[in-house]
Amino acid sequence: MLRVDMNADLGESFGAYTIGADETLMRLVTSANIACGFHAGDPSVMERTVALAAEAGTAVGAHPGYPDLQGFGRRHVGMTLGEIRAMLIYQIGALRGFCAARSVPLRHVKLHGALYNEAAVDRDLARTVCQAVRDVAPEVSVFCLSGSVMLSEAERAGLRAASEVFADRAYNDDGTLVSRKTPGSVLHDAEAVARRVVGMVRDGAVESVNGNRVPLRADSICVHGDNAAAVELARRVREALEAEGVAVKAFGAE
Amino acid sequence: MLRVDMNADLGESFGAYTIGADETLMRLVTSANIACGFHAGDPSVMERTVALAAEAGTAVGAHPGYPDLQGFGRRHVGMTLGEIRAMLIYQIGALRGFCAARSVPLRHVKLHGALYNEAAVDRDLARTVCQAVRDVAPEVSVFCLSGSVMLSEAERAGLRAASEVFADRAYNDDGTLVSRKTPGSVLHDAEAVARRVVGMVRDGAVESVNGNRVPLRADSICVHGDNAAAVELARRVREALEAEGVAVKAFGAE
Amino acid sequence: MLRVDMNADLGESFGAYTIGADETLMRLVTSANIACGFHAGDPSVMERTVALAAEAGTAVGAHPGYPDLQGFGRRHVGMTLGEIRAMLIYQIGALRGFCAARSVPLRHVKLHGALYNEAAVDRDLARTVCQAVRDVAPEVSVFCLSGSVMLSEAERAGLRAASEVFADRAYNDDGTLVSRKTPGSVLHDAEAVARRVVGMVRDGAVESVNGNRVPLRADSICVHGDNAAAVELARRVREALEAEGVAVKAFGAE
Amino acid sequence: MLRVDMNADLGESFGAYTIGADETLMRLVTSANIACGFHAGDPSVMERTVALAAEAGTAVGAHPGYPDLQGFGRRHVGMTLGEIRAMLIYQIGALRGFCAARSVPLRHVKLHGALYNEAAVDRDLARTVCQAVRDVAPEVSVFCLSGSVMLSEAERAGLRAASEVFADRAYNDDGTLVSRKTPGSVLHDAEAVARRVVGMVRDGAVESVNGNRVPLRADSICVHGDNAAAVELARRVREALEAEGVAVKAFGAE
Repeated sequence: MLRVDMNADLGESFGAYTIGADETLMRLVTSANIACGFHAGDPSVMERTVALAAEAGTAVGAHPGYPDLQGFGRRHVGMTLGEIRAMLIYQIGALRGFCAARSVPLRHVKLHGALYNEAAVDRDLARTVCQAVRDVAPEVSVFCLSGSVMLSEAERAGLRAASEVFADRAYNDDGTLVSRKTPGSVLHDAEAVARRVVGMVRDGAVESVNGNRVPLRADSICVHGDNAAAVELARRVREALEAEGVAVKAFGAE
Repeated sequence: MLRVDMNADLGESFGAYTIGADETLMRLVTSANIACGFHAGDPSVMERTVALAAEAGTAVGAHPGYPDLQGFGRRHVGMTLGEIRAMLIYQIGALRGFCAARSVPLRHVKLHGALYNEAAVDRDLARTVCQAVRDVAPEVSVFCLSGSVMLSEAERAGLRAASEVFADRAYNDDGTLVSRKTPGSVLHDAEAVARRVVGMVRDGAVESVNGNRVPLRADSICVHGDNAAAVELARRVREALEAEGVAVKAFGAE
Repeated sequence: MLRVDMNADLGESFGAYTIGADETLMRLVTSANIACGFHAGDPSVMERTVALAAEAGTAVGAHPGYPDLQGFGRRHVGMTLGEIRAMLIYQIGALRGFCAARSVPLRHVKLHGALYNEAAVDRDLARTVCQAVRDVAPEVSVFCLSGSVMLSEAERAGLRAASEVFADRAYNDDGTLVSRKTPGSVLHDAEAVARRVVGMVRDGAVESVNGNRVPLRADSICVHGDNAAAVELARRVREALEAEGVAVKAFGAE
Repeated sequence: MLRVDMNADLGESFGAYTIGADETLMRLVTSANIACGFHAGDPSVMERTVALAAEAGTAVGAHPGYPDLQGFGRRHVGMTLGEIRAMLIYQIGALRGFCAARSVPLRHVKLHGALYNEAAVDRDLARTVCQAVRDVAPEVSVFCLSGSVMLSEAERAGLRAASEVFADRAYNDDGTLVSRKTPGSVLHDAEAVARRVVGMVRDGAVESVNGNRVPLRADSICVHGDNAAAVELARRVREALEAEGVAVKAFGAE
């Protein structure tokens, strides 16, 4: 039987600032990537979000990013590999603290924003990240862009690696994502997206912007919750998967 | 055979800013209270300090404080008990991340600065702190001011609690510390301090500023490393203890 | 002819985090209190908000607060008077930078959150604030709670002081605001609020929670923009004032 | 008569963290580049440093950098040009606030760290910086690396620009600085450095690492105060200049 995980970034609020439809999205996905206070989130938000995940039975993951609250972690910060290693251990450790307090396991790590994009193509960075994860939490999975350098490094490091695809993003012929700056890079038609995702899971491939077949491995599907349309899209993706008999389950769960 | 622990605040540097004679002090004390990035320290400093402790065989403790880098955690911040709980879990979890990466146990928690002083007298706060520690790291000890509300709450919560005394501070008749603002509150004569500490450990008492005998329990002695004189004082205290046949060992160690 | 100012807190967004209906509210009020990056706002938001005020012809004011982004400036931070003085000069200077770049004058200063509440009753703090304002920007007005210690200190310091009243808050018999924690402390009926505000301006008094007449001076009326109802309430207040022939103008404007 | 300015980075302490021999260095240089709280410095340090400059008669300049306290502004942060513009106006405005409070003029702006290095070679960034300075403080000078894109852009923008040379750094044949990572890039012999600086001022040239003559314009000489040797070097440079009859005066001063 086919199976797939659905993941979303959650717990991105900060103090009085609220972002995201966390309550709803938490019940639509099977893995929650929870911000760790550097690019978004704060300790109180983290505790609340882990509790929300525990109640929903959603797998908890750490979602570390650059120390860049103003830029939401989307800006590169020129840190050394040693500094990046240390800040990853810090953030993952902090989130695992909330897991321990709530008696739920930390299940995965997914990098955020600029750090995610950089580790997908920079082998030294990817290796540093994987080593840090292995040192602090060897039991967790790492979510990596399908076909990326990060994915191969995670596997080489002996970590369990989930190959991640994006529900609403256009793909280039080489399997990389079309830049957000390019028109048409983000797909908005919920029905088309749902069909596309089902195809990714069933066929292990997606059609590129040029109409070519791009092979990929869909262990987990990333969806968003920034606005009502995004949440609706996530709902349609899940419905379509289940209608096709695909089991939607957290990556690595029994 | 008499025994006692010696502890010091370490890992208080931040980025390019260096504070403290960590290398030296780490070998003089048996427990290191390591700052967790809120009032001092940063992830790279934390990783380095845990490594230093591991090499020296010094017990590693988390030293969480208010989010107040500019004020070094000495300023009260009007957080709710819920916010304090969450930031403690965060900071303790983060430090435990470095312990995991280095394969050393987290051995204790000691509050820093304003938070330490407040929890010594505010029962609701003390209870919140103890509950947070018990939820995130039930196996660790908590270092508490001798005779404080915090000490009794830690014991009531079932935590292993170390009663802490200060080597170089004057005591009031009721066992509280004389305010730093009062002249004579900090003792500078290394020989006198060393004799005084030996007396605390051997007799379970100290002479107050008014010349009265104040009973206290000295499980751990706090020393400082801000300057050369402080380090020298710590060295003298340790020598004097050992000369008297007191075993200087980490609290709770075999 | 009667006249009054209407003011609101604006520019409270931060990075990707958006708060407040700034575009709408900016055209309803005559004075904008713009956050200065410590409790809310960031440099880009500040530049944008000053531009918005310039386009709307709304008077620009600095709205400094404690360094407390997570707590939105609503938490006390135990800073010394000297530290508070310095951070006020810093924040006011920063906002005046954007005024200079846009060629609009800085017209007033209004403290935010916990700092506003504390300076209303703490004479030493009020004096420190007034001295700081006089040193950095002697030409600006200071907005102070009607009847407060801050108002009398501002006048004593030779600053132009606006006595501020709150449109939607219940008053005690002594002219202080009923605590937000007390049920009924915030008024929601737009028509009743509008009538109440007109009465404050025309009669120089308001009815307290106990039904007594409380004299006050309404130089400026504070309204909010947190949600659609608040904006609607602000609109009704302005309409009611203008319908009664009260000129709604920035404090101190020709 | 020949003249030259000497400048140094000052006010880089933060809270309890102290860096730099500010008291001594303030009297050796004629222009002080004062950190603005983003990469170093805090409001209290800024107020103190402006006071120190006022007492010493040293010209006050703003020394803005990236928002990167942990990295001391030496790390690139991927901000947009618009974000950089806004943060420059913010920092320069904040420092000018302290100038206003102390009744001393703001005399110059010098970028810090990574931002300084980037603007020396990136024309769009240099243009953005110059436009920001012109908008917020058109009366001030801008200190720019000799021969840099930033220098030509500052002049094109109609700003008064000081061409800056470094006392203790080796130069490449094209007038750029030898990277700090290259052995021999930093000169330590105080006598040799002093002679070299006198040559720069008198001859408008310096000898490169390859032994070639490199023309440069020495309006201001940058010296450092990180340690005792650096302060001694600054003292020797000043003595040598004065012994040669060069007037050491703030850039642009009567």
